Amino acid sequence: MSARIHARYFVETPCDLEHAAQVMAGEQSSGTFTRLASETDALRTAHGARVESIQHLEVVDRPSLPMRADLTPTVRHGYQRALVELSWPLENFGPSLLNLVSTVAGNLFELKEFSGLRLLDLELPPAFADAYPGPQFGTAGTRRLSGVELGPLIGTIIKPSVGLTPEQTAEMVEQLIEGGIDFIKDDELQANGPHSPLKARVDAIMPLINAHAERTGKKVMYAFNISGDIDEMRAHHDYVVAAGGTCVMVAINSVGLAGVAQLRRHCQVALHGHRAGWGLYSRSPHIGIGFAAYHKLWRLAGVDHIHVNGLRNKFSEEDDSVIASAQACQAPLFGASAPDYTVMPVFSSGQSAVQVADTHAALGNSDLIYCCGGGIMAHPGGIAGGVASLRQAWEAAAAGIAPEIYSRDHIELAQAMETFR
Amino acid sequence: MSARIHARYFVETPCDLEHAAQVMAGEQSSGTFTRLASETDALRTAHGARVESIQHLEVVDRPSLPMRADLTPTVRHGYQRALVELSWPLENFGPSLLNLVSTVAGNLFELKEFSGLRLLDLELPPAFADAYPGPQFGTAGTRRLSGVELGPLIGTIIKPSVGLTPEQTAEMVEQLIEGGIDFIKDDELQANGPHSPLKARVDAIMPLINAHAERTGKKVMYAFNISGDIDEMRAHHDYVVAAGGTCVMVAINSVGLAGVAQLRRHCQVALHGHRAGWGLYSRSPHIGIGFAAYHKLWRLAGVDHIHVNGLRNKFSEEDDSVIASAQACQAPLFGASAPDYTVMPVFSSGQSAVQVADTHAALGNSDLIYCCGGGIMAHPGGIAGGVASLRQAWEAAAAGIAPEIYSRDHIELAQAMETFR
Repeated sequence: MSARIHARYFVETPCDLEHAAQVMAGEQSSGTFTRLASETDALRTAHGARVESIQHLEVVDRPSLPMRADLTPTVRHGYQRALVELSWPLENFGPSLLNLVSTVAGNLFELKEFSGLRLLDLELPPAFADAYPGPQFGTAGTRRLSGVELGPLIGTIIKPSVGLTPEQTAEMVEQLIEGGIDFIKDDELQANGPHSPLKARVDAIMPLINAHAERTGKKVMYAFNISGDIDEMRAHHDYVVAAGGTCVMVAINSVGLAGVAQLRRHCQVALHGHRAGWGLYSRSPHIGIGFAAYHKLWRLAGVDHIHVNGLRNKFSEEDDSVIASAQACQAPLFGASAPDYTVMPVFSSGQSAVQVADTHAALGNSDLIYCCGGGIMAHPGGIAGGVASLRQAWEAAAAGIAPEIYSRDHIELAQAMETFR
Repeated sequence: MSARIHARYFVETPCDLEHAAQVMAGEQSSGTFTRLASETDALRTAHGARVESIQHLEVVDRPSLPMRADLTPTVRHGYQRALVELSWPLENFGPSLLNLVSTVAGNLFELKEFSGLRLLDLELPPAFADAYPGPQFGTAGTRRLSGVELGPLIGTIIKPSVGLTPEQTAEMVEQLIEGGIDFIKDDELQANGPHSPLKARVDAIMPLINAHAERTGKKVMYAFNISGDIDEMRAHHDYVVAAGGTCVMVAINSVGLAGVAQLRRHCQVALHGHRAGWGLYSRSPHIGIGFAAYHKLWRLAGVDHIHVNGLRNKFSEEDDSVIASAQACQAPLFGASAPDYTVMPVFSSGQSAVQVADTHAALGNSDLIYCCGGGIMAHPGGIAGGVASLRQAWEAAAAGIAPEIYSRDHIELAQAMETFR
């Protein structure tokens, strides 16, 4: 019996639901819904997608996504919502990440039968683990590279996003290192622009990081944004490695799956996945790809870190969604039958010591990167005060002590609670 | 004065529109909306995104996309829709396709201020033409490779999509060649699966195409689906070229921009761009990327053909949108100051001779690939009849003769009009 790929969808349709699900299965497997002479029963049995289950949800009066004008007048009984699970034999395309995407997230989004169709989750057979090495460093490797044994990596992002020279960036990095930071990243808008070429940035920054590492034994992890064309990314990766860097960053949606998977096979340092453009997949409940499915693709492609926003963030994402995403990153990808492919979730956007207790309570661990901008820079004690406040907040959380109690004899945490509340 | 990149958006917001537009500009350029000390006036002037124009549209009562629960209660005056144009100095990231995408289609989709945000169009300075070679063959090159001097390339897709052996596929190809077809493509679900490895398919098909070319001088263009990891695509491209093939196909959304741009630099044959997954970008009017913007990215990356559906297709796309997309493919990318980077639009999905007159009338030319499945296979005269009916329909359209008139002495067209009407 062959291994199968499973995918779960939210759908909404004015058609008979059983028929609509069969249209999805047909479009994404052996043929169109109309059977051709050459589509034998044996072929359909061997290669057809299977409708595994249909779970009815509510009926709504109006289509959530516009349907073709020539189709809508025939709708009489509203738009049925449902959860549909399909499965495919692995033989249809083998353990190929790109052809998986064309199958589970391809033409079906355009089917005229649906006024809503969203990929929610994916379940992949372990054959994919043989084909894709997955995260090279993950949590344990990132801790080893950064020397942070306990608690999250306390991080920040270089701002302004665009416009600083390499020298100005290095000045900021120097202050951050002195302030005790663990992790720094380029903004996703800053890769290799004419005013801050990647190599010049590496040249300005890495001597500071290396000197500090020699002095203290602690090497701050800097995620250099190398997003670019394939040859450019490879050359820039090599430049970062030669300079002693421990992390490169890519804007995964912009680069794409083939590019990230290729970079992973060449990569010698932690691969930081920024999901700029994620709103395209996430903002509508009626079209798109849920994080549960989305992030599995990038874990297979091999990122070590992936962004999840943070509690009470500056964007549109709700707290429940943030926590579910972080939990997904930390769950094994293939069950017990393969390496776990876990990645470190990266919290960011409007974060400070104030959200730490809730974040730890929801997640139950500190295996993450916790990036703050204002939560560090705007702390009354400066950068060192901001970083200290965050460490204290995470210490308190890990020890099960309320921040109000812990802050009585931890002044930086007290200042943060006062400033950012 | 520096070159600038322009992007136009549809937006919907409960906030003051001027403020909301500035938030977009801030998020995607020099920094966050809150100004940091290091963000000087000079830096903002040099690198900040500029709000070029705001055009108010209607106000709606309800948010089109869900907004965060903690923000909605403050909305008092409804949700203002508008068209917003932003511009960025090219210096921010240089002519980098990937960093362009992170900038014009990045974090801004997640901004909490918006209940709708869709990228509609892009205007790029010619510096991008220096950085990306664009389509290598386009219309003229595709005509040269396929020997089709006038009219569209009449094409079809191998179905069933998945499940045929290479030998069964070759049998079908043989019939299509004998029937006079110009262009055949693999289905986007069929790349290199265990039951039909790419090399075995090339081995089975190319001798037929080559033998026919030697006999008749006409080499049928077969778009082999090589979508896969970078090294795999390169190897498979080389295999197709060595066997005498003239086209390779990739599922562009699955492969991603970096992978397609890399393949283009290596490619020696026509690069056929399949947009499986396009519904993700197109189905919602409130989030996503319009074809006008979307297809420019892939033209820069270097595809020669791109899919646009067809009139009265089987999917959810309206006819107006299909024609606008095809026109966009045929319009110069940079105005008069650079090569035109035009690509051939590929019509498909439920097409037959019946839609030809309307397609030609709307588009005004035949510089396209016209793919039919049933419109060829289900023709009463068989494959040859189907192909003939399509050529007759396009001849009639080019000559300005109504198909009802032309079909009086063109039996295959008459049969098609009767069968597919």
